[in-house]
Amino acid sequence: MESFLENEIRVVSIKEEVLADNKNAADAMRDSLSEKGTLMANVMGSPGAGKTELILGLLDRLPSNVSRGVIEGDIASTVDSQKMMEKGVDVVQLRTGGACHIDIPMVEQALDGFDGEHDFVVIENVGNLVCPAEFDTGAHFSMMLLSVPEGWDKVLKYPLMFTVSDALVITKCDLLPFFEDFNLCSLREQAKALNPSIEIFEVSSKNGDGLNELTEWVVAHGIRGIA
Amino acid sequence: MESFLENEIRVVSIKEEVLADNKNAADAMRDSLSEKGTLMANVMGSPGAGKTELILGLLDRLPSNVSRGVIEGDIASTVDSQKMMEKGVDVVQLRTGGACHIDIPMVEQALDGFDGEHDFVVIENVGNLVCPAEFDTGAHFSMMLLSVPEGWDKVLKYPLMFTVSDALVITKCDLLPFFEDFNLCSLREQAKALNPSIEIFEVSSKNGDGLNELTEWVVAHGIRGIA
Repeated sequence: MESFLENEIRVVSIKEEVLADNKNAADAMRDSLSEKGTLMANVMGSPGAGKTELILGLLDRLPSNVSRGVIEGDIASTVDSQKMMEKGVDVVQLRTGGACHIDIPMVEQALDGFDGEHDFVVIENVGNLVCPAEFDTGAHFSMMLLSVPEGWDKVLKYPLMFTVSDALVITKCDLLPFFEDFNLCSLREQAKALNPSIEIFEVSSKNGDGLNELTEWVVAHGIRGIA
Repeated sequence: MESFLENEIRVVSIKEEVLADNKNAADAMRDSLSEKGTLMANVMGSPGAGKTELILGLLDRLPSNVSRGVIEGDIASTVDSQKMMEKGVDVVQLRTGGACHIDIPMVEQALDGFDGEHDFVVIENVGNLVCPAEFDTGAHFSMMLLSVPEGWDKVLKYPLMFTVSDALVITKCDLLPFFEDFNLCSLREQAKALNPSIEIFEVSSKNGDGLNELTEWVVAHGIRGIA
């Protein structure tokens, strides 16, 4: 540990041991899924960021011939799985029993839980802006959600999440008129400064704004059955 | 790992090893703080739940003779510490370097970072509804924040946080008119069912509603210099 002054603020830095890297297993899973013709997406965000609603909105916009499955990561409940089932989505619930993220062994278990292969699988990760960023899930791409009510100043606070995500999806944009402090411009600037290749979408699952654009970007990763 | 059917949802349960228990060290810290006449509070909540604003609102309402310090837990930035400093609050920033929670060794370092003893110390934990619940910080009591925009259905999803907290502070209540789905009654019911002794407060840091009541509850834990 080191203690030093930075901009007059006393900072105590704590170096954590690097968490177990499951990158090799993740690469193997990605290859295996690609061979089977399955595209897998990883959706991350805080509790209440709107992950479940966004996934439902995305799935609604895919052609009906695309078979789809959802892996619900949740610490304890089956609340989100029930929402998915009500919409007729094939879902496997991963009850992590306290774990704050999803890793490869969990994803393997979940994939085995489906009755067959799917063209498109979405992982709804545990609601958490911290830990899920550290564990490669074996997905082909990752989206992080940041909802307008959470505030725009999250890039500097949770940098790893912005670094590892392929897309930043700003959710609940219908609420922007009520959050005058939400600095969309600075959020975009800071996110791009940290991760220049990150795609940024502004959406509202409530009124559907931006969902078609996001769906097009998802589909562009290549889903079997979509020309 | 076990796989079974529950309400027709396929559930894969994953038992995690119990995370390192620092309970003994926490008890020792509580005793040591009590001997010195310091009351310490632990504030937890998701990113954007309004932790920093709530702490500032609480400190504002304490008599000026109460010396106070804030320990800012943050993964990477000093954004919140800067806000505290601007308000003249004695603050020590804990940069956790990726760690998703604050534990006793970190709190010890932070307390050493203050120039002297304080009557009241507040820990602003890392923005996370999961991991901080697992680590006793050595504080005398814990408050968890849940903001209205996050949604009311968090008790079943993040039960440990509700179990270990002495108070549930529902923040951003000025936004309730815009969140008609927010089921305050069910949230109260579920929280009390899980943790019958939890105190529940409805506040708005924006307009100050509920902050006096919360401050009274905090003060009732015993702060030196307040009769």
